[in-house]
Amino acid sequence: MHDILIEKNILSKNKTIAVENRKMLREKGAFSINMVGSPGSGKTAIIEKTIESLKDTVTLAVIEGDIQTSLDTQRISKYSIPVRQITTGKACHLDAHMIYHTLPWLFEQGNTQILIIENVGNMVCPAEYDLGEDMMIVVMSVTEGDEKPLKYPAIFHTSDVLLINKVDLLGYTDFHTERAMKNALKINPDLKIFTISCKTGEGIMDWCNFLMDKKKQSHPDMQHRNCF
Amino acid sequence: MHDILIEKNILSKNKTIAVENRKMLREKGAFSINMVGSPGSGKTAIIEKTIESLKDTVTLAVIEGDIQTSLDTQRISKYSIPVRQITTGKACHLDAHMIYHTLPWLFEQGNTQILIIENVGNMVCPAEYDLGEDMMIVVMSVTEGDEKPLKYPAIFHTSDVLLINKVDLLGYTDFHTERAMKNALKINPDLKIFTISCKTGEGIMDWCNFLMDKKKQSHPDMQHRNCF
Repeated sequence: MHDILIEKNILSKNKTIAVENRKMLREKGAFSINMVGSPGSGKTAIIEKTIESLKDTVTLAVIEGDIQTSLDTQRISKYSIPVRQITTGKACHLDAHMIYHTLPWLFEQGNTQILIIENVGNMVCPAEYDLGEDMMIVVMSVTEGDEKPLKYPAIFHTSDVLLINKVDLLGYTDFHTERAMKNALKINPDLKIFTISCKTGEGIMDWCNFLMDKKKQSHPDMQHRNCF
Repeated sequence: MHDILIEKNILSKNKTIAVENRKMLREKGAFSINMVGSPGSGKTAIIEKTIESLKDTVTLAVIEGDIQTSLDTQRISKYSIPVRQITTGKACHLDAHMIYHTLPWLFEQGNTQILIIENVGNMVCPAEYDLGEDMMIVVMSVTEGDEKPLKYPAIFHTSDVLLINKVDLLGYTDFHTERAMKNALKINPDLKIFTISCKTGEGIMDWCNFLMDKKKQSHPDMQHRNCF
């Protein structure tokens, strides 16, 4: 019982800070997404493809969460957009407090229209920690198995979008896309699903168009770089 | 500071129970392994292949840890060996207490020579929770990326064995096996590494022979079913 109270207290504090983060980000006109998924599901590769597709249209920034190393930040830095690493040490997820302390850096970078936060690779714990984002995106790859939504329901329940990644490998796995979608929708009927491949580019434009639409809906008066 | 003390306390309690689990398992002649790794890395498939290879030689039992569902237990039950599901609910890892409560069931099944525990799919949290096993086995698949040992060092540091799985997919990924091994050995020079494929069977016999050797070293007087 004591442990449950401690957990409730931690999550309640996190929620308070997340609400504040969301308010500040929205005031600054930044639409923010929180990318979650297993290690190796392809979150960083998707971020790279998203940047390549949208960097001439909107201003982007990235916050990279990892237990150790700044390898992902190094990958992103080649695009010459603002990127900041949060190294969590032992923590298995980002939390709202970590993002809160990164926002002053973000706001110093000037106008950011889309903020992409890559969470620590973990299908479990990030589900419980609202960071203040506008959308949570769960990534699973076809090599992980189509039953994953049933086995890790919380993260599919909390997310707004599911990206089924690495569909170029479909022919070499036992993964059934229809079954995976059915399992995911059983957990969360409102989930918007895209099948994508960072290798072939399949589905990337659909995903990016959706992201831009959501951004526009949240800030209908925004001025895009190239009148997207 | 308060949170650190709570965590220390939880881990200290877990360690005490783990020591007790290990003592009881060893007294009963059971060699136990704790399989950890990301969702979809192939832990259950490896357990299936291990059972197929060893079931006529030693007595085996399996404990399956999952957040939700008993899908993995259903997969294992076709081998007619004792298998028990632990559904953790929200917990992102098994702990020694959960195993402690499963041991009476295990000991009722008669003599178990090798106990395989499949942990919740998670590259982070299981590293900290000793279950009382003799060996921790970390599984990563070639679709996850060869930098993973650097990004999730704790689990590679704690493990005794690394199984690099799905090597049949090597030709379709950018994974460099040598680099992955080098990264893993940088974190833990004592790690024993096998490259395997549950699809082609590559490396499975090497892994199973190693497991049997370890079992024999821990219980040199054991009587195997077929004088292995």
